[in-house]
Amino acid sequence: MSAPISAQMVNELRGRTGAGLMDCKKALVEANGNSEEAITILRKKGAASAAKKAERTTKEGLIESYIHVGGKVGVLIEVNCETDFVARNDGFKTFVRDLCLQIAATSPLYVSRDQVPEADLAKEREIALAQVVGKPPAAVQKIVEGKLERFYSTVCLVDQSFVKVPEKTVKDVLTEAIAKTGENIQIRRFVRFQLGS
Amino acid sequence: MSAPISAQMVNELRGRTGAGLMDCKKALVEANGNSEEAITILRKKGAASAAKKAERTTKEGLIESYIHVGGKVGVLIEVNCETDFVARNDGFKTFVRDLCLQIAATSPLYVSRDQVPEADLAKEREIALAQVVGKPPAAVQKIVEGKLERFYSTVCLVDQSFVKVPEKTVKDVLTEAIAKTGENIQIRRFVRFQLGS
Repeated sequence: MSAPISAQMVNELRGRTGAGLMDCKKALVEANGNSEEAITILRKKGAASAAKKAERTTKEGLIESYIHVGGKVGVLIEVNCETDFVARNDGFKTFVRDLCLQIAATSPLYVSRDQVPEADLAKEREIALAQVVGKPPAAVQKIVEGKLERFYSTVCLVDQSFVKVPEKTVKDVLTEAIAKTGENIQIRRFVRFQLGS
Repeated sequence: MSAPISAQMVNELRGRTGAGLMDCKKALVEANGNSEEAITILRKKGAASAAKKAERTTKEGLIESYIHVGGKVGVLIEVNCETDFVARNDGFKTFVRDLCLQIAATSPLYVSRDQVPEADLAKEREIALAQVVGKPPAAVQKIVEGKLERFYSTVCLVDQSFVKVPEKTVKDVLTEAIAKTGENIQIRRFVRFQLGS
């Protein structure tokens, strides 16, 4: 026996997830009327199609800034999506603003790890290797990889822990935004100015 | 016979120029109580000492941003001065904000001409020379220099015509700000993001 799915439930779910009408209805049926479970189902579907979306062109989006009180730190960011409709969506705007605050607070150097210069990475690897001298060889590679992961999660925005919800990474929140909007979203570039540095 | 200089006149002049108490009083005496003339006198004095100030260190200042309506263009700028007192001054804030608007509107590439890459300059010179083929040799250098000046006034912020008061250059307005505040002021850096470009 499946629970009856009312139009109100469907609309509420649409409001919370931004997903399409039919997707919400199907998810609610599958979740037997439990909206929390329906959100999980929708997220899984969204996340599953995120990889495909990552190939679609993103030419719209938002440029947003944040100036920390007193004007000592400032951030400028460009986040792209596929349509101006999504760019004007409140959820998207909040996501972009959160990224500004994140960058102001955590000072990342790059958007993602593919932007880390080869020389910097080699240097980090060298330091990590020097620190594990004397450890059993079997453990060395694992320890070094772990240290590099920590390096990435310091300097790369998408690998950082999301300040607002520390259990998630910025990449997780980006994937959620892609799932919610149904559009490919790309953090294209950012700069962070700190007074006198 | 000199006109009497009231404390109110002195205070008003201080408010308009940001200059010191004694400087304002002296300027009013010299101008025979005419405040417009007193401002000119103060500006001349300020401008005269601007060259010396340009060597003093600037570690304070403001980071400011401007996002054009709709979030399609954004600017982030750092302007330095010597003290936090001046950084919090309304005149300084307005100057920094005006620079943001200027950059959003005119898309300069560099702060000043010393930042133009040698190769870009060589290319501009080559183009200019190609355009004057056949002109009398005596005129060639002058024409080429004129074309390079126009190039600088397009790509260099301080050489641009100031959007708010087109008869002045940004450098003129910067010199005025130095005179008004009595501090060395430097436009340290800026970035301009345009959506998808």
